[in-house]
Amino acid sequence: MRQALDRLGVDTPGQGFVDITGALSDWVARHGIADGMLTIWCRHTSASLLVQENADPAVRADLQAFLRRLAPEGAAYRHTEEGPDDMPAHIRAALMPTHLCVPVQAERLALGTWQAVYLVEHRRAPHRRELALHLIGE
Amino acid sequence: MRQALDRLGVDTPGQGFVDITGALSDWVARHGIADGMLTIWCRHTSASLLVQENADPAVRADLQAFLRRLAPEGAAYRHTEEGPDDMPAHIRAALMPTHLCVPVQAERLALGTWQAVYLVEHRRAPHRRELALHLIGE
Amino acid sequence: MRQALDRLGVDTPGQGFVDITGALSDWVARHGIADGMLTIWCRHTSASLLVQENADPAVRADLQAFLRRLAPEGAAYRHTEEGPDDMPAHIRAALMPTHLCVPVQAERLALGTWQAVYLVEHRRAPHRRELALHLIGE
Repeated sequence: MRQALDRLGVDTPGQGFVDITGALSDWVARHGIADGMLTIWCRHTSASLLVQENADPAVRADLQAFLRRLAPEGAAYRHTEEGPDDMPAHIRAALMPTHLCVPVQAERLALGTWQAVYLVEHRRAPHRRELALHLIGE
Repeated sequence: MRQALDRLGVDTPGQGFVDITGALSDWVARHGIADGMLTIWCRHTSASLLVQENADPAVRADLQAFLRRLAPEGAAYRHTEEGPDDMPAHIRAALMPTHLCVPVQAERLALGTWQAVYLVEHRRAPHRRELALHLIGE
Repeated sequence: MRQALDRLGVDTPGQGFVDITGALSDWVARHGIADGMLTIWCRHTSASLLVQENADPAVRADLQAFLRRLAPEGAAYRHTEEGPDDMPAHIRAALMPTHLCVPVQAERLALGTWQAVYLVEHRRAPHRRELALHLIGE
């Protein structure tokens, strides 16, 4: 049994979804661990990791619209110092995963056919986000 | 230290909760790993894994009613090709876990007294869902 | 490769956030495992584990206010036997994590600068909550 740890930087273009499935698969493939488990940890409180459909982009547009209605900018927040999009970002981050643990089988992530892993940026401005990665297996 | 990987099929009767606690406990018991960690990964974007109370069925009915109000069918979605229940299913799946990691102690899942693990089907039609399982320990 | 398992009790003062980052870090430090992964499992269905900002307390106040609006006491619930705050607690617990898996690097949790780990109590009364801990690594 072996393990590998790393950090992975992801640039976001502001609010929206960045598909990181390929970057994660590539990272796993480099370690020669056929079977095991990958943990991805998002080191931020205004960005999330989310599994969603990889086919129709309208799914992500609808999800974004839903999040904007659920935790809108301009509601009566106390925490306003970091801009009108910061507290909604914290709320959305509270409702979506900070981490994912994906089984690895035969050197591949055990994702379903329609699953992609996204880094979800909740802030309006582009950010450099950092993920902590952990892989264990043999 | 050893690990085990598998797939587990779960039939759902359409929208609702399927208790998979027993199936998971049985699977863990078959591997002779006394202490370790079980990861359960749902390979779908319109079904979730959820820990909820195992006692009063009204809790699940209230939760279902809440989800129907939160992400209703018939809202103005762009993604409509797969039926009126599909986009609400994706939204609900974004807000509830795709995976769970449960410590295993003395060959038992370390669940609390009132906890059960449910596969939550978000679509109206019955589905065959597939889970990826990973167990590590000794 | 080694592992450690334990239980950790946390006293809550009723509805709100209890910072458990220090208790988790101390527990990890006691095991002499430099690199690995920590899993924290909340053994309850009316309390959650949440990663949120550790700086401005107004963030937690705004998040609490959001949760009270999202799943209010006094809505038309069927499950009422355990008091008006119980079903809202179950709903909030369905939307926030029951478990977290944090990579450990160089004997430290790989948290971001602004991240703290909170036990979120959803009930109005103080409770003694129990977490199951699992650490694996070397």
